[in-house]
Amino acid sequence: MKTARKLRVGMLGCGVVGSEVARLLIANQDDLAARSGAGLEMVKISVRNLQTPRPGIDPELFTTDSDSIVDDPTIDLVIEVMGGIEPAHQLILRAMKNGKAVVTANKALLAKFGAELFHASDEADVDLYYEAAVAGAIPILRPLAESLVGDHVERVMGIINGTTNYILTKMYETGATFENALKEAQALGYAEADPTADIESFDAVAKAAILAGLAFHTQVTDEDVYREGITKVSADDVSVASEMGFVIKLLAIAEANEVHGSDEETITVRVHPTLIPKTHPLASVREAFNAVFVQCESAGELMFYGRGAGGTPTASAILGDLVAVARNRIEGSLGPTETDYADLDIAPMGVTKTRYLIRLEVLDVPGVLASVAATFAKNDVSILTVRQDGRGADAELIVLTHIATESSLSSTVKQLADLDSVKDVLSVIRVEGLSS
Amino acid sequence: MKTARKLRVGMLGCGVVGSEVARLLIANQDDLAARSGAGLEMVKISVRNLQTPRPGIDPELFTTDSDSIVDDPTIDLVIEVMGGIEPAHQLILRAMKNGKAVVTANKALLAKFGAELFHASDEADVDLYYEAAVAGAIPILRPLAESLVGDHVERVMGIINGTTNYILTKMYETGATFENALKEAQALGYAEADPTADIESFDAVAKAAILAGLAFHTQVTDEDVYREGITKVSADDVSVASEMGFVIKLLAIAEANEVHGSDEETITVRVHPTLIPKTHPLASVREAFNAVFVQCESAGELMFYGRGAGGTPTASAILGDLVAVARNRIEGSLGPTETDYADLDIAPMGVTKTRYLIRLEVLDVPGVLASVAATFAKNDVSILTVRQDGRGADAELIVLTHIATESSLSSTVKQLADLDSVKDVLSVIRVEGLSS
Repeated sequence: MKTARKLRVGMLGCGVVGSEVARLLIANQDDLAARSGAGLEMVKISVRNLQTPRPGIDPELFTTDSDSIVDDPTIDLVIEVMGGIEPAHQLILRAMKNGKAVVTANKALLAKFGAELFHASDEADVDLYYEAAVAGAIPILRPLAESLVGDHVERVMGIINGTTNYILTKMYETGATFENALKEAQALGYAEADPTADIESFDAVAKAAILAGLAFHTQVTDEDVYREGITKVSADDVSVASEMGFVIKLLAIAEANEVHGSDEETITVRVHPTLIPKTHPLASVREAFNAVFVQCESAGELMFYGRGAGGTPTASAILGDLVAVARNRIEGSLGPTETDYADLDIAPMGVTKTRYLIRLEVLDVPGVLASVAATFAKNDVSILTVRQDGRGADAELIVLTHIATESSLSSTVKQLADLDSVKDVLSVIRVEGLSS
Repeated sequence: MKTARKLRVGMLGCGVVGSEVARLLIANQDDLAARSGAGLEMVKISVRNLQTPRPGIDPELFTTDSDSIVDDPTIDLVIEVMGGIEPAHQLILRAMKNGKAVVTANKALLAKFGAELFHASDEADVDLYYEAAVAGAIPILRPLAESLVGDHVERVMGIINGTTNYILTKMYETGATFENALKEAQALGYAEADPTADIESFDAVAKAAILAGLAFHTQVTDEDVYREGITKVSADDVSVASEMGFVIKLLAIAEANEVHGSDEETITVRVHPTLIPKTHPLASVREAFNAVFVQCESAGELMFYGRGAGGTPTASAILGDLVAVARNRIEGSLGPTETDYADLDIAPMGVTKTRYLIRLEVLDVPGVLASVAATFAKNDVSILTVRQDGRGADAELIVLTHIATESSLSSTVKQLADLDSVKDVLSVIRVEGLSS
């Protein structure tokens, strides 16, 4: 062990995650030194407000001047946990230009400026690690980028937002409405006062872009990702789905699509409420847990499960990265760099192929099913099952389709809404995880 | 991309896994070259019998002379998939001494001579990678060794033998006896004609030693692992367990134990049939799938799930390692080396603490429960629940204990067997995964 060496660490930001990183770096210093081959010493932490009490961390470490960290020639490694796009973006670029290895948990930044940051780390010959940016404590980025590098990823499906998984779990298990489940999540601290980023899927979209980029060796940004939130999921959707053997989850799905009549592949990346069979491994991922399901040509089906958020779990991922970049620095080597050589085209949502569950409120008169079925047929969408639930003068038709393209399905739904016998299209939810 | 470079690959062995490696290395050569920064060319494969047909692989590649591979100065990387201890052991040592990076899937060898091999790879400044040795396609060794390196692993619990998981799944889902489930597994190719290595847990023991060594940064060999097979698990055990909310799995468990009155930790490593609650994430791992559940101080609970065996899944893990060592070679760097700095003592099985389910065949006479309960109390083993099932003149007592040490439990069982009212101790099965 070369523990005689010391590496100096600076940190940008000191919120929930940062405080845990600082605490664990001291509590576990002997183990971390033995594993990285160098003592890791936290020497400076930038914060917005010096007055905020941060028990257990030496007050001498704090500064409000982030530049003084990224420009400090004695600092070897920089941890970025301030979040947001700016100034994190410029600070990381400058830290790398100044020869520092960087560990970040900033998913929004990576989803927007990943390509620029990876290029800058290549240019500067420094490591940029970010395991904590997706699925918190779950080791998923390194397995995708390294363990599965000899395989061909076909599809990634992930529950990568704990807040929405908590809400959907409560709706499924207690019959709660979305509004009540959200309130409970807020009361317990699983959802923020302004829950938009979670329930409208912006958080999951950023993570989906990062996962897709790694899985398919292609540059993917948040703007390439189709997005739907969970706010329109009703208690009726959940109970109808359950009766049919499904559970509803917010899934991020990145998959390769064959291009008809060509060797080429394209990818699609999307985040939306999704029905999966109750027997699917992702179905039993409850509450705020995360899981990423990966289908590979050779490895087959894999799943990675664990805590997707929280100060301590996220700090674990950051410290894992910190040890790795420290070890590289001591050895004079660098970790694997990002590859986007495959440079696949990102196809529009319309080419996505999947199954759909459609709930229609219809008049309870003869001939309704015939006109509904004709509308599906006209658009080349085959029906797998139809169920009719009477309710007084009206009825509910529940249609589960075979695999169809998103564009065929969209026109079908538009034409269904125009039928005289269809009073309302109650919901259209995509279905995944059924065997073909 | 530096794809101008070529690396020459030799392979020792060409069975089910080796043939898949050779096939995929050609089929995916462009992707593998882009990802590793070098073309990977299979130049020589040693086999026992040149006459065995191996379709799709150039017959010119084959030799019966393994030495000609490990001694060939033009070969950069060696894949060992011949299995067994010798000559694999000496061949790998010689390949490394000759400056070649080695990728192996040989769990038995690593469980016996891991320390020697890691030391030799350090001495020779070459990589020795072995992700395929445990849990086939599931990336578990790299996450343990790298992603979780900043954390403190408390416990690893794994379903790491597909054959026994298939058998136990059939017993649980169909009520089959062990013998019939084994026959079915053999008919389907999940179990070998001589199933000893699987059903007596030798295979799982080797993998448990490797997992424990990585998780606790300590040298662990197969001889350090407590072993029980699944041959004594009866259909009654399975159905009684199920009625009580448990499923039975063959688990490999490596855990840290606090040493009373000291800061020191010891570890225990064991493989045995285990009851876990049906709600535990490992409970839903069916058929030949594998999964490893990891509890960490900071990351909390993690699980890694996927195919634990089979030619193609195992080949995926080997190719992932091959790309990694190729990338390192091109960069002139080395992957992280094994650390056994923690050097924890391996405690005897007697100090293990867990819960137990004990099935007793007793006389159906007054006072039986009193004498049974007294025997538990005398040995300091608290009872959580007792259930009595009448069966004519006899009765069955099913006792679930609180947490107790293995040594207290052993003496309890010995004394129970000596009671006049106890006709037979039908089974004693450890219980894990209940919250404290």
